[in-house]
Amino acid sequence: MKFESPVPVQWVAEYTGARLVGNDTQEATGINEIHKVTNGDISFVDFEKYYNASINSAATIIIINKEVPCPKGKTLLVIDDPFAAYVKLVKRFRPFQPAYQMISDTALIGEGTHLQPGVFIGNNVRIGANCLIHPNVTIYDHTIIGDNVIIHAGCVLGADAFYFKRRRDQVMQYDKMESCGRVVIEDNVEIGAGSTIDKGVSGDTIIGAGTKLDNHIHIGHGAVIGKNCLFAAQVGIGGKAIIEDEVILWGQVGVSKDLTIGKGAVVMAQSGVPASLDGGKAYFGSPVGEAKPKMREMAWVKRIPELWEKVYGNKNL
Amino acid sequence: MKFESPVPVQWVAEYTGARLVGNDTQEATGINEIHKVTNGDISFVDFEKYYNASINSAATIIIINKEVPCPKGKTLLVIDDPFAAYVKLVKRFRPFQPAYQMISDTALIGEGTHLQPGVFIGNNVRIGANCLIHPNVTIYDHTIIGDNVIIHAGCVLGADAFYFKRRRDQVMQYDKMESCGRVVIEDNVEIGAGSTIDKGVSGDTIIGAGTKLDNHIHIGHGAVIGKNCLFAAQVGIGGKAIIEDEVILWGQVGVSKDLTIGKGAVVMAQSGVPASLDGGKAYFGSPVGEAKPKMREMAWVKRIPELWEKVYGNKNL
Amino acid sequence: MKFESPVPVQWVAEYTGARLVGNDTQEATGINEIHKVTNGDISFVDFEKYYNASINSAATIIIINKEVPCPKGKTLLVIDDPFAAYVKLVKRFRPFQPAYQMISDTALIGEGTHLQPGVFIGNNVRIGANCLIHPNVTIYDHTIIGDNVIIHAGCVLGADAFYFKRRRDQVMQYDKMESCGRVVIEDNVEIGAGSTIDKGVSGDTIIGAGTKLDNHIHIGHGAVIGKNCLFAAQVGIGGKAIIEDEVILWGQVGVSKDLTIGKGAVVMAQSGVPASLDGGKAYFGSPVGEAKPKMREMAWVKRIPELWEKVYGNKNL
Repeated sequence: MKFESPVPVQWVAEYTGARLVGNDTQEATGINEIHKVTNGDISFVDFEKYYNASINSAATIIIINKEVPCPKGKTLLVIDDPFAAYVKLVKRFRPFQPAYQMISDTALIGEGTHLQPGVFIGNNVRIGANCLIHPNVTIYDHTIIGDNVIIHAGCVLGADAFYFKRRRDQVMQYDKMESCGRVVIEDNVEIGAGSTIDKGVSGDTIIGAGTKLDNHIHIGHGAVIGKNCLFAAQVGIGGKAIIEDEVILWGQVGVSKDLTIGKGAVVMAQSGVPASLDGGKAYFGSPVGEAKPKMREMAWVKRIPELWEKVYGNKNL
Repeated sequence: MKFESPVPVQWVAEYTGARLVGNDTQEATGINEIHKVTNGDISFVDFEKYYNASINSAATIIIINKEVPCPKGKTLLVIDDPFAAYVKLVKRFRPFQPAYQMISDTALIGEGTHLQPGVFIGNNVRIGANCLIHPNVTIYDHTIIGDNVIIHAGCVLGADAFYFKRRRDQVMQYDKMESCGRVVIEDNVEIGAGSTIDKGVSGDTIIGAGTKLDNHIHIGHGAVIGKNCLFAAQVGIGGKAIIEDEVILWGQVGVSKDLTIGKGAVVMAQSGVPASLDGGKAYFGSPVGEAKPKMREMAWVKRIPELWEKVYGNKNL
Repeated sequence: MKFESPVPVQWVAEYTGARLVGNDTQEATGINEIHKVTNGDISFVDFEKYYNASINSAATIIIINKEVPCPKGKTLLVIDDPFAAYVKLVKRFRPFQPAYQMISDTALIGEGTHLQPGVFIGNNVRIGANCLIHPNVTIYDHTIIGDNVIIHAGCVLGADAFYFKRRRDQVMQYDKMESCGRVVIEDNVEIGAGSTIDKGVSGDTIIGAGTKLDNHIHIGHGAVIGKNCLFAAQVGIGGKAIIEDEVILWGQVGVSKDLTIGKGAVVMAQSGVPASLDGGKAYFGSPVGEAKPKMREMAWVKRIPELWEKVYGNKNL
């Protein structure tokens, strides 16, 4: 998320109640996730094992729960609860704005684009030319849609990230990470009925040009889907997964968060992908393996009784 | 379901055409399921193997398809088809009421609660304070929602139980069990886009306080979900399942009906749960087992070819 | 899809730019898929291995990308890109018609049928008597619904087929197969909340009388579901699958396209069906097998360590 105009880092320190260490003259231009930050961005870190990655990222302002050596030119904002500080900033710079009409006055709709009845378009949404949005679709604030996009009925674009912090202070509870990212749909995408694409926590969830999604598909917060991918019905993609171009996922495949599926990979139906996969290969199983060894594995399983009989002289189960 | 006012049991016998055995002076105060009945409730049973459980439950009025010894003070309503009698009562006391506007006049909406456009709120719905209901959500009649609840776009709360009785009289058909239960959402729950929570057949489907559901989740009729649970996208929970507090279900987990998952259990992605699980442990697989033995099992499978070679001197498949 | 009135085959040749071979005097009465064509239908084929099936089908007009011997009385329309010709015809005879109101004036709604608020009914939809359509349901153009049908909130009937042709001319892209088929829901069907049923590419997607679908179910384009089937939540059915009468699919079952599941088959939860199954049996697993051998297979897997120990004298993993 980018701020509408830059904000002095001293103001950020004061607003969040953090102690400023290092550069106290720069301006913050936005908020983003560690893997997407650029110069001027605020990032946050509250786990020691991510300190180095965060401090050495492109982020120039880091909200952190311990004072560590600050790289030259950067700013640390030291505070006990970086998560809460971050949420406070998001609520300040991207507060929820109630809608009272189905199509926001601040939405920009391109030429030749048709919205069927019952479509909700939130604030600051931009939709390109020659799109067709079918009935009862919901498009949350700040979503960006390219040209020639088709969205079937009942889809939801831009709902909040499913991202909570477990607390065990006096009582157990989950605190909500307010999300300020967007959903970005590139040109020539088609999205099947009843699919949902969540916004990123602070970065964007992106569906690459020419990608076609079937019905009931779930794309988690901050996932980046490449160009010309094909996902069959009921596929689910976890948060911040990266799916490269021309990947094919068959029905009911589940993909975990924070991994990469390489270009042109094909994952067979109902497979579960817990970790990154190389491109250009076919996969199967839950958890997934390369398809051919997996098929052989299944054939070997059927031979256990024979092997048992050879060893024991019987195959009583 | 509770009646608005108590109903004489003789009237119930007459209305359903049942023969009254036992106490003919008490009043019926509601209808409920065998595992949730309290004093004054009507229950029904049409399978001999459930006779005892039904007659010895807290229900004081039992619709039954055979005369059996009636406990003192209770009432049996004997009729060939208890299912049909039950449905007739539900249709009488909780008939479907057509709506002609998006927000029912009989709905109570708490202070600070905002309904986005396109939300449907049925009759007698109660929503607490400071809730946010996103566009195109449907909330059926009689649903109860607490405070600080967030419901994302496209959700459906309170649709009918998926509960049918197979008939093979002249022709095969399924008769619909009319449902008269409710959906009850406690405080601080968040429900992801496109999720559906069915009402109970005659009891309540409950989502405990602080529980967070991701997108495309299905909660079956009469399920009781504990507090501070976390369910990832595309999880499905069968009817009347009991999920205790702080259970975590990862993406695409399926849980069968009529079972219990103990407090704090964690079930890994795509697992299938056919029977009850102890709390405090991690599980994996379809059908599910404890995660570590299951992982070892998968490692053993990969050693079959080696074992085969040791025994047979080759590993030709 | 049937045309409103017959069209001379010479006009079709001219409109698509195809070369006419064979009978040049007949009239085309509609467009259909190879397994559903009847006399007067146009079909198309662009893979050599399907030439024979297409030419010998009941279709009397075949759009084809190579001149082959033409059966007496039939017409070949020879063109480099039959897919594009077909799409051009569909766009001509069944163009998308924008809607500007929730209930089309051309829809026919039967007596005793009630539409809850927020329902979208497209052009030329026909709904029978005594149906109940819950809020925020979307019914695309040309859908046909029988009597006594219940459709729960958030369902989408008649969205486009998920059917694309991969092109690699200068750049890789997917071309959309415009679909002109319909969704046909027979009498006494109930469809659970948030389910989606896609229209056929040129034939019909059919849900047989008395069939009950739970929530979040996906039925692909052109699938034909028999009578009195029962599908639990989150089941997905691929395009053109044939599910015969009285089949029961438990939760999260996935069924591939272009196969048949025989009458009365029962498929247990989370199973994946990649190929046809005989009727009257129970199945389990992904990929699916008959339930009993599959259960035994799982029991054998648990004995590998014992077998290993017998052979090697230890069971170290």
